[in-house]
Amino acid sequence: MSKMTKMRIGEYLIKRLKQLGVKHLFGVPGDFNLKFLDLVEDDEGIEWIGGCNELNIGYAADGYARINKIGAVVTTFGVGELSVINAIAGSYAEMVPVVHIVGTPSTQSQADGAILHHTLGNGDFRIYMKMYEGITVAQTSLNQDNAKSEIDRVLRECYIKARPVYISLPTDVYNKDIDVAEDLSDDPLDLSYPENPREVEEAAISQIIEEIHKSKSTIILADVGTSRYSITKEFVNFAEKTGFRVFTSPMGKGVISENHPLFGGIYIGNVSEPHVQHGVEEADLIISIGSLKSDFNTGGFSYLVSAAKTIELRHDRVTVFYAVYENVSMRQILPKLTSRLERQPDLTQIESPYQSQPVMEELSSQQITHSWFWREIASKFLKPNDIIIAETGTSMFGLMDVRFPEGATFISQILYGSIGYSVGATLGATLAVKNGKTKRRVILFVGDGSFQVTVQEVSTMIRNNLDPIIFIINNDGYTIERLIHGLKRKYNDIQPWQYCKTLEYFSTTRKGRTIQVSTKKEFESCISQLSDSPFNEIQIIEIIMDKFDAPRSLLKTTENTYKEIPPEMQKK
Amino acid sequence: MSKMTKMRIGEYLIKRLKQLGVKHLFGVPGDFNLKFLDLVEDDEGIEWIGGCNELNIGYAADGYARINKIGAVVTTFGVGELSVINAIAGSYAEMVPVVHIVGTPSTQSQADGAILHHTLGNGDFRIYMKMYEGITVAQTSLNQDNAKSEIDRVLRECYIKARPVYISLPTDVYNKDIDVAEDLSDDPLDLSYPENPREVEEAAISQIIEEIHKSKSTIILADVGTSRYSITKEFVNFAEKTGFRVFTSPMGKGVISENHPLFGGIYIGNVSEPHVQHGVEEADLIISIGSLKSDFNTGGFSYLVSAAKTIELRHDRVTVFYAVYENVSMRQILPKLTSRLERQPDLTQIESPYQSQPVMEELSSQQITHSWFWREIASKFLKPNDIIIAETGTSMFGLMDVRFPEGATFISQILYGSIGYSVGATLGATLAVKNGKTKRRVILFVGDGSFQVTVQEVSTMIRNNLDPIIFIINNDGYTIERLIHGLKRKYNDIQPWQYCKTLEYFSTTRKGRTIQVSTKKEFESCISQLSDSPFNEIQIIEIIMDKFDAPRSLLKTTENTYKEIPPEMQKK
Repeated sequence: MSKMTKMRIGEYLIKRLKQLGVKHLFGVPGDFNLKFLDLVEDDEGIEWIGGCNELNIGYAADGYARINKIGAVVTTFGVGELSVINAIAGSYAEMVPVVHIVGTPSTQSQADGAILHHTLGNGDFRIYMKMYEGITVAQTSLNQDNAKSEIDRVLRECYIKARPVYISLPTDVYNKDIDVAEDLSDDPLDLSYPENPREVEEAAISQIIEEIHKSKSTIILADVGTSRYSITKEFVNFAEKTGFRVFTSPMGKGVISENHPLFGGIYIGNVSEPHVQHGVEEADLIISIGSLKSDFNTGGFSYLVSAAKTIELRHDRVTVFYAVYENVSMRQILPKLTSRLERQPDLTQIESPYQSQPVMEELSSQQITHSWFWREIASKFLKPNDIIIAETGTSMFGLMDVRFPEGATFISQILYGSIGYSVGATLGATLAVKNGKTKRRVILFVGDGSFQVTVQEVSTMIRNNLDPIIFIINNDGYTIERLIHGLKRKYNDIQPWQYCKTLEYFSTTRKGRTIQVSTKKEFESCISQLSDSPFNEIQIIEIIMDKFDAPRSLLKTTENTYKEIPPEMQKK
Repeated sequence: MSKMTKMRIGEYLIKRLKQLGVKHLFGVPGDFNLKFLDLVEDDEGIEWIGGCNELNIGYAADGYARINKIGAVVTTFGVGELSVINAIAGSYAEMVPVVHIVGTPSTQSQADGAILHHTLGNGDFRIYMKMYEGITVAQTSLNQDNAKSEIDRVLRECYIKARPVYISLPTDVYNKDIDVAEDLSDDPLDLSYPENPREVEEAAISQIIEEIHKSKSTIILADVGTSRYSITKEFVNFAEKTGFRVFTSPMGKGVISENHPLFGGIYIGNVSEPHVQHGVEEADLIISIGSLKSDFNTGGFSYLVSAAKTIELRHDRVTVFYAVYENVSMRQILPKLTSRLERQPDLTQIESPYQSQPVMEELSSQQITHSWFWREIASKFLKPNDIIIAETGTSMFGLMDVRFPEGATFISQILYGSIGYSVGATLGATLAVKNGKTKRRVILFVGDGSFQVTVQEVSTMIRNNLDPIIFIINNDGYTIERLIHGLKRKYNDIQPWQYCKTLEYFSTTRKGRTIQVSTKKEFESCISQLSDSPFNEIQIIEIIMDKFDAPRSLLKTTENTYKEIPPEMQKK
């Protein structure tokens, strides 16, 4: 243990965040967090990213955390923390570790029940934190006595459980001194995962190996938990050692390279391409890793994967058919399985059967259709290491048929599905890779209706000199909703905006580039323009599409979930 | 009782809302509310107002309710209801009756704990409603059996308690038939207020009359409860009968005409003009009506109004000095007091001592200052019956020194203070007066930082052909926060936008008028332009001000609350 020193609580919190890799702190200033923000602004190792509003910047912290392993957001008491609550609930649902720091009134005001602004006028200062109980894995209100241990506890919970936590930091607490190690690297956060119970784990391993040996056709189905619980490497090692064919879910898209010889495709129940569906459903043993069987992740619950032939590896338990091995985490059991199984044939001898794009009849019309658009994006635009962000709408479904290039990362809210999320997430993801060793492009696909929800965060991208490429699919309203219900209802219409003026509106000094595209020809010229020369400013491409056009996988998922597709939207 | 008939639950809910006077239903469509929206769209007596996002449209419902007595907002499960939660918390704090209808998954999905999109992935369908318990006065989840009684119960609670309520409407419930009176006017909602306990009330009346007779100088201090509990008429009758001088709080601003001979001014503790402060603090008896002693409503707790000389009339109890009369509501006791007290001298003989604008030294500079600006607004721009909306920032404080014209209404979130509120509220208030008998202008004063929070709802104003007049005070950042802390900190800066292009950006067909003003001369010409001819489209006026300039009352309140004013911001 190194020498002890005094440190202000706010500073300690910042240092701990930095130890976890947080380099950008997102948020909106408010009078109960301003003094803490002084410490942030004065710290050279962390950059303050102020957003236009809390919800948007909460989405940014989530997008950041998906790339950076963890993110953090600062809001102010009441109005701020409730404005961001939907973003934090999304992070909870989607298993994204976000630290939410709320600047709260002084301990004295809270004890007095003072009728301060931002309160409900009833002297209740606990109510907002209480609302966070169901959507964070740990909550704390800091004071001088508990600050050290509580900060360490909640940050550990956030990291280990990969879900958000809540920290209340009263205005009189941030600058109180506490005793800490002079060199904090001598007193690291405990980020160790709980050990699997040895005998239970051993029993699980034996049974799994036995089942694998019995099986004639084992496949792996990799889902969201693989990336969220950071076991992508362990999972790929396991796949490569065993040579099992790998399929991913929509939420698992990208956890293995889609050009990997073992990659079989995206399994989405009966929404999948037939060869993918057969590949999964005809296997006699399925090793499912980190699964989450939500509606949009399973093609509207059209998965045909019986528990009777599934080995489920999760972060908190392993299930072999109907036998449950509690507290056995995939994190530790996977490498053990890998080392205990024999090596299978040389990978270079294996070929992926995966065909990403269903062959569609080429229409002679110049109108840009989804089936044409996504194929073009796949074949002419995407590059290795791209970060591809899609809104839960036509974009996310459209990308299901796109084979990702090597090293690509996919960001979307397939479970929580909060419209507008993707714009904030783009801000966060772009900052996360801003100074990375490898230059990674951040590419957003978002519909007009979703873009309107959170549009102002484009200005924060401009302000921070970020260079995402934003495709706005302008299809004149809420197309995913038209498909679900109310095809021609007015409530699914939106106000048309001049999306091409976005950059102009949000900046007084011209930055970036805007292209509007309404024909296939224009799109082709746009794509070559985008690819021709490096461009390090923000780019917006507005794509005009028909409001009744939707990607194949969305039509099929809707059919599964809602049982009817309006004739106008059925593919001819 | 009239003949009974079958009616769908969704229709019944709409009819009940219409009976309460709801003509516009605000919200954002989402797949769990779409089918209910069919009923809304098909009903000629109610208009659907779709917003760009839920928070904004929740603010709109609140602004609407402040003019229309009640408002309603529809969102979708999870993502929608959590996005709007901060607006509903604001309505709760500020005592505004808003009915929040949430389209939720089918009863079967909920019972099954299905992992649907918009859930947290844990099968818990109660969690979001639970978060609403502390910020609504009633919650319900409708089914075929309870729908009639539950709808009636929560709407009554909303109306009577003047606070928001929460209604969960599952997708399979909205179209279920229930038995209701064919003519619903034969079965009206019970909107009667509970009767005061007679003997307790009688005792309170006697004591109050005795104290009034003993007093040599009684004044009335009217606060927010007067308007929120709709007893403005009763209160003015009481004042006129007794002839007592009337002062209002900031939140009570406008509850009595500021040109009324009895009006004495806005009392904000030591932030008040000296003659107002003396008028209140030197009285030997204060009749306080509907008070809310929050920080910004009391000049940072600088009220000097001792309980020992105060009679407090509230919606739920009366206090005479230290004696509490429980459950005696001001609503019923006020008219009784009025009728039992003798008439005082002719009002035409009384003159108001109120001087609204402190006389400021005129600076020769062309720079527009707050002290100059608000005086110009008061003397040259405001008109009778204007609805004046101010953001909680320099605008709200600036208006404290502005004498309102006859019939003006003031809308601001002085207690809850959620930045960005005023833009949404403007949308709602403008709709509330759209087809009124008297043409009322809706005028918004908002700073640039707040405007950025909720900017996209300007597009909803354009879409609905509304004609508010929006003054954007462009002072280069969060000026109210600079004053509180971090005068020159970067976190109080914002991205500069081209506010003059707002209407252009949010519309493909040119609408409205935009004026940018940076000198006094330009402002004067702008004001005459605005006044010259009627203009029935939206207008935006961008006013350039210095970032270190703030209204007098804000400086003083800040000094009271935070104990220091940066020298740069002190008035010379």
